[in-house]
Amino acid sequence: MSRLLLNCDIGESFGAWKMGLDAEVMPLIDCANIACGFHAGDPSTMHHTIALAIEHRVSIGAHPGYPDLVGFGRRSLACSPAEVEDLLLYQIGALDGLCRAQGARVSYVKPHGALYQDMMRDPKILAAVMRAVAAYDPQLPLMLMSTRDNTPAQDIGDECGVTLWFEAFADRAYDADGFLVSRNLPGAVHHEAGQVISQAVAIASGKPLVASDGSALPLRAHTLCVHGDNPGSVAAVRHIREALDALEAQ
Amino acid sequence: MSRLLLNCDIGESFGAWKMGLDAEVMPLIDCANIACGFHAGDPSTMHHTIALAIEHRVSIGAHPGYPDLVGFGRRSLACSPAEVEDLLLYQIGALDGLCRAQGARVSYVKPHGALYQDMMRDPKILAAVMRAVAAYDPQLPLMLMSTRDNTPAQDIGDECGVTLWFEAFADRAYDADGFLVSRNLPGAVHHEAGQVISQAVAIASGKPLVASDGSALPLRAHTLCVHGDNPGSVAAVRHIREALDALEAQ
Amino acid sequence: MSRLLLNCDIGESFGAWKMGLDAEVMPLIDCANIACGFHAGDPSTMHHTIALAIEHRVSIGAHPGYPDLVGFGRRSLACSPAEVEDLLLYQIGALDGLCRAQGARVSYVKPHGALYQDMMRDPKILAAVMRAVAAYDPQLPLMLMSTRDNTPAQDIGDECGVTLWFEAFADRAYDADGFLVSRNLPGAVHHEAGQVISQAVAIASGKPLVASDGSALPLRAHTLCVHGDNPGSVAAVRHIREALDALEAQ
Amino acid sequence: MSRLLLNCDIGESFGAWKMGLDAEVMPLIDCANIACGFHAGDPSTMHHTIALAIEHRVSIGAHPGYPDLVGFGRRSLACSPAEVEDLLLYQIGALDGLCRAQGARVSYVKPHGALYQDMMRDPKILAAVMRAVAAYDPQLPLMLMSTRDNTPAQDIGDECGVTLWFEAFADRAYDADGFLVSRNLPGAVHHEAGQVISQAVAIASGKPLVASDGSALPLRAHTLCVHGDNPGSVAAVRHIREALDALEAQ
Repeated sequence: MSRLLLNCDIGESFGAWKMGLDAEVMPLIDCANIACGFHAGDPSTMHHTIALAIEHRVSIGAHPGYPDLVGFGRRSLACSPAEVEDLLLYQIGALDGLCRAQGARVSYVKPHGALYQDMMRDPKILAAVMRAVAAYDPQLPLMLMSTRDNTPAQDIGDECGVTLWFEAFADRAYDADGFLVSRNLPGAVHHEAGQVISQAVAIASGKPLVASDGSALPLRAHTLCVHGDNPGSVAAVRHIREALDALEAQ
Repeated sequence: MSRLLLNCDIGESFGAWKMGLDAEVMPLIDCANIACGFHAGDPSTMHHTIALAIEHRVSIGAHPGYPDLVGFGRRSLACSPAEVEDLLLYQIGALDGLCRAQGARVSYVKPHGALYQDMMRDPKILAAVMRAVAAYDPQLPLMLMSTRDNTPAQDIGDECGVTLWFEAFADRAYDADGFLVSRNLPGAVHHEAGQVISQAVAIASGKPLVASDGSALPLRAHTLCVHGDNPGSVAAVRHIREALDALEAQ
Repeated sequence: MSRLLLNCDIGESFGAWKMGLDAEVMPLIDCANIACGFHAGDPSTMHHTIALAIEHRVSIGAHPGYPDLVGFGRRSLACSPAEVEDLLLYQIGALDGLCRAQGARVSYVKPHGALYQDMMRDPKILAAVMRAVAAYDPQLPLMLMSTRDNTPAQDIGDECGVTLWFEAFADRAYDADGFLVSRNLPGAVHHEAGQVISQAVAIASGKPLVASDGSALPLRAHTLCVHGDNPGSVAAVRHIREALDALEAQ
Repeated sequence: MSRLLLNCDIGESFGAWKMGLDAEVMPLIDCANIACGFHAGDPSTMHHTIALAIEHRVSIGAHPGYPDLVGFGRRSLACSPAEVEDLLLYQIGALDGLCRAQGARVSYVKPHGALYQDMMRDPKILAAVMRAVAAYDPQLPLMLMSTRDNTPAQDIGDECGVTLWFEAFADRAYDADGFLVSRNLPGAVHHEAGQVISQAVAIASGKPLVASDGSALPLRAHTLCVHGDNPGSVAAVRHIREALDALEAQ
């Protein structure tokens, strides 16, 4: 069993506006999904976020989004697959440009917000994302959501020659198909620390979760998505980190 | 005597708005200064412009500008040197990302518009530009304006470890210091084809020009800046190309 | 029977990028749908377009769009109704600000591109648009597409207290429900001048059109949408203008 | 002696990014300088900020800036006077559009950041600002900085027919000409509450301040600029408010 990596959206400030407790959460994670300027982040914010990642030996991931600053990339924008391909390459390259200047490199890609969701539900967008990642660098893994059946995504990945890193969530309930229960429904988000940690440990141990309908849900996961937007979420990351470290030490 | 290269601003369309006769001028030039999305260009325009450059075996240069679409990067923006460094790296990387996807690479950098002018008059901005270029790739040359005395720029270039490619203009009058005569003054722009071609040939031959005060002006130049924005300027590029080819064939 | 007004999208340049033959088409139309800076247009372009409309005594309409310059407002953006309301008020007010400075006023509203289409298919978006128009000024009519059954739109209009101006197209084929035949299908666009003019005259005379399935299609229309983007479309507007003037002179 | 009004920059959030303690400071001030979307603010933020101002019966001022979100409008942008005029009208109109929808109106204008500073040092920019304000509505006052000699500004104001509201600062040291001592110099900012309050009271009472060279500095002021960006500055506003209320009650 390989180590379950913790990934976190980071570098989401923009100009004079600050967002996220980057300095607090960076020491606790393995993979930093750094915003690339389209939904958040700007060249100087990216520069400083990369420096922080390097300081803590955290892997740098490109976190590209739709060109929608005011909507923080959370609103779906009807782009063609060719447009998605181009806006991914632009953003990956921009982040990598700032990385190269510091002797680092982008080492994976995870789309943001509505682009992530559109990619998970539309195979044409997923294929466009994969073509961009493969065209930039065939060694670059794509981070995407693990569900009960990852075969369709894996098939596109194999066709495009892209390594897939599946991610899971410790603080969210899953339905029987392995999709997240909508935030509009009761019980969608786990608020108790104990429940979050036990779900993280289950995922790390390769044990099935219990889906919202009570069925057993096996989830393949290389990485766990965590959050650093407020003191509570940073505390949760610290507890998850400790629990996973304890698990590995066994 | 090495060949005088023709460089041209290109890829300056933006979304639905078209600008420049890129398809007509690309076959005639050696170096394409491709807009990187801040003052012109967008990811898809950049993709297609790169493909056109590759088709015609034209070197691809990053043409970064201030973040001022509505002003086309022609209005000076009071950025700090650190901000200039970061916005250059972002734009160079973005263009290079789209190049890599097509098996190409950015092979030089030429700042655009007000950023170019600010760099020529403020050594702090010039040094910031050079630090960005060197940090991205020490092999990447910077294209900048040749004047009577290039020593100050060369000194900064030596300090930063950046190769400098000096450019000259065939269609503009020079003053005694080797700066362009302001467009507000009479005689600033050469409108006769014969005068443009003879100035191009003089530059290519290493012969001094005649400055606006009548003095002889020697100008060191690796490249000549040409324009592809309208049929007249494309015709001028064709005539310059033919004159330079004839000169080399001698 | 009141006069059928000609409306045309105009003021779609942006900064250094020019689009449309505004000076040629303005003298031929009654209503100028002026872009408000989100999908096209900028403060100075808006200023000059307003001046041109005033010169030719053309009514000024706000033509608000999604905040998507690079996509020219043609890509649907998943905005909430509240967001739509606010972005409409912002754009109507901005155009009206520039109008007031020249002694003019915005006198109607017509949404642009994907926002127009989203409004036509989603009653929640249509209601948001109408709430914004009514909140700005209850006297301001909303221009929207006429279909076979305008009752649903009229009901929302009555509820919001907004006057509706229905528009029709002379150069497009209609299906039996009074929607435009998709551009992907054969015969969607009328290319012959004669066909365009006879459809315009039929609409102006209140005679039913022939839908794509051969059925008779009555269309209630206050205004006809025409185009000024190229010499051919301007010529078509001139012919339509002449035909309608002749009709009125009868 | 008329009441000294407290004005404060407000509504400076942008999309998902929050800035300023608007809800805390709004009840304490008289005039809210609301960002208009170019350097901060977006249509929905503007909507909610206007509602908050109305709730607390605070006058709404347009706070237009340069189109530079990433630089928060703090970087000078070399706009022509005509461009300044148009971008002011656009922003004033946009804010007024959102005001009208809530039954309110923009009741004064105060430029932001680098635009404010450029206006204070360049009479051509000041005249452009005044032309825009007067063109929008000759009743609309312009808020600008009071110095020892306000005659030059007053002359332009008289020429343009614009009422001027001069503002002063309670927390900043002044030089002998009545300009703010640069933040780079020691003693530029008053950090002690007592000093801030006594300067506010002196300004409200029409008593001269002591300039940095020890000379007496009479300052004509209609309004005092206060800040709501953090708990400390809100507390300072509360103390100033109490001191001014006590003064008026005498």
